[in-house]
Amino acid sequence: MSGDFLALAQPGVQQLSPYVPGKPVDELARELDIDPATIVKLASNENPLGASPKALAAIQGELAELTRYPDGNGFALKSLLSSQCGVQLDQVTLGNGSNDILELVARAYLAPGLNAVFSEHAFAVYPIVTQAVGADAHVVPATDWGHDLQAMLKAIDNNTRVVFIANPNNPTGTWFDANALNEFLQDVPERVLVVLDEAYIEYAEGGELPDGLEFLSAYPNLLVSRTFSKAYGLAALRVGYALSSAVVADILNRVRQPFNVNSFALAAACAALQDADYLAESRRLNDAGMHQLQEGFRELGLGWIPSRGNFIALDLGQLAAPVYQGLLREGVIVRPVANYGMPNHLRITIGLPAENARLLEALAKVLVRG
Amino acid sequence: MSGDFLALAQPGVQQLSPYVPGKPVDELARELDIDPATIVKLASNENPLGASPKALAAIQGELAELTRYPDGNGFALKSLLSSQCGVQLDQVTLGNGSNDILELVARAYLAPGLNAVFSEHAFAVYPIVTQAVGADAHVVPATDWGHDLQAMLKAIDNNTRVVFIANPNNPTGTWFDANALNEFLQDVPERVLVVLDEAYIEYAEGGELPDGLEFLSAYPNLLVSRTFSKAYGLAALRVGYALSSAVVADILNRVRQPFNVNSFALAAACAALQDADYLAESRRLNDAGMHQLQEGFRELGLGWIPSRGNFIALDLGQLAAPVYQGLLREGVIVRPVANYGMPNHLRITIGLPAENARLLEALAKVLVRG
Repeated sequence: MSGDFLALAQPGVQQLSPYVPGKPVDELARELDIDPATIVKLASNENPLGASPKALAAIQGELAELTRYPDGNGFALKSLLSSQCGVQLDQVTLGNGSNDILELVARAYLAPGLNAVFSEHAFAVYPIVTQAVGADAHVVPATDWGHDLQAMLKAIDNNTRVVFIANPNNPTGTWFDANALNEFLQDVPERVLVVLDEAYIEYAEGGELPDGLEFLSAYPNLLVSRTFSKAYGLAALRVGYALSSAVVADILNRVRQPFNVNSFALAAACAALQDADYLAESRRLNDAGMHQLQEGFRELGLGWIPSRGNFIALDLGQLAAPVYQGLLREGVIVRPVANYGMPNHLRITIGLPAENARLLEALAKVLVRG
Repeated sequence: MSGDFLALAQPGVQQLSPYVPGKPVDELARELDIDPATIVKLASNENPLGASPKALAAIQGELAELTRYPDGNGFALKSLLSSQCGVQLDQVTLGNGSNDILELVARAYLAPGLNAVFSEHAFAVYPIVTQAVGADAHVVPATDWGHDLQAMLKAIDNNTRVVFIANPNNPTGTWFDANALNEFLQDVPERVLVVLDEAYIEYAEGGELPDGLEFLSAYPNLLVSRTFSKAYGLAALRVGYALSSAVVADILNRVRQPFNVNSFALAAACAALQDADYLAESRRLNDAGMHQLQEGFRELGLGWIPSRGNFIALDLGQLAAPVYQGLLREGVIVRPVANYGMPNHLRITIGLPAENARLLEALAKVLVRG
């Protein structure tokens, strides 16, 4: 074996295909040679409301400490989460986004010969973190685009160590209720860690979706993963968290990098957690935008998958790639999801009213043009 | 195997002891019940100069984009690094601090049954990232507190995939010259990745230390790791980088999280790279502080390890723990390094002139008191 650093990489790593993010505004602006300000990006499930003034103020408070390392223990943020979520401090793990949390789980509990169970049409990071450590993926066919929890139970075998479920699920927006979650948790073997990804839960709270935290005390094999990148509006800074048993949190905290979350993220997340108005307005804006888009789709005679997230999977009834390209030419970026096994859909983030209108106009234009 | 999530963790992970950071100012302030502003922290090799105005301006420019994801490709920063360092864009990997780089290397190239070679008294993160993936560590005894490169060569066996070397080394401050590096690189088998950690190189440039980048084209198995946390003054934001062959960079970029570096870090690092004045002033301040501390140690009859970093390992000739505790009571935080096999030393970061003076006064007091 000579200096072939592709062949020398771990087998799981060699097969990795990187995550494909939403097309950046600047990239499209360069390609079309137009002003970036005229482009509407509804591709990454970002919060269209703009920054929370309280988060911005917290960031200003960190500027003087730019040369200093963050608090590696994230004491202030963990304390706030602990009291708001009703868990002990030692049940909290902070991540560099919730992507970090998902990866920590894989690195701690998966390895070659072991496997993770997750659903078809689930978040692309589940297969990536599983593949990166050389473990196997048991991908369970979806029902009506959502998790088939009964089939997922059956897919668990002796080598299963982790099950990833998402409520609501990205990119489909599908969800399950408290009864379904409870029955699932009752039947999962206690040696299997259930990662309940609630990245979008703040958009769905109080409806048919359960609050995963209410199941933590009954199920020590449950981990709830959440993020500040969506409803809290802090995607730029990268911060997410996990709530779990203290034993699991201890393991994840050993694996995480000592300064995985930066100082600005820690401060902004503390402010965001205490900014109930911003969260309420994000939710209100999302509900209104969801209604606006569905009305528009109906007028265009298009179907969609009912969603509880800040996005909606539009069903074009035909290959979506040409429509995606047509929208790009109109200066509107949405997300193709063929790599999620959904070649006929486009995932569209709920934007501001004017952005949603732009999308609907562009869509009408592109569809007429054919 | 029931739900014992300690026993279910990967064997390497089970044995992990987390990194021990410098004691935070707020923690000591709480313990001593004193004003944090009166505390001098010389414990984490942070830049005492304070934030670069250009970096701060770049951060202000990012505030409006707080709700948007970072550019996952870090195009602007990679372009700047590429031109400043004289490498191609595809030879650059960005990390959430250089800690992220070290971890990516371990995850890509190490596994149970394989090993990494590094020196006694080397950076604590080398054993941690090696242990986390269940690989073995070949720790080579130091010579005069520095790397014994000949002995390190001999420690390489058929299962060695990575060698970590640091120039200058933390926490000892020791270094090797261009000839020593070149001879070492010539003799390392080409299938072994040499990670040259240059976290402190900006403090030593132009002296006896080689610029690792000059060896990249001759040695495809060389990776140079650098950080913005030290001389560039951006520790709070977490950003570092690796320069390597395109093949190695491709692998590391597959393993890294898609948004591992936050937007503020990307923008601030671009500004810092173009702020030659800040870098020069950091270097000047460090040289002056190094002189000031050595003069002070000499007057106190104390020895030290000659250093090319922004820190110095003070030799107390006796167990350092009581002196560390005594300094804490004086409101001065330094770094005990018993966990680096250096129980008689304290690592002291070069501070501002007044901070260095505070340290020397406190040290005199504590030593007289005995």
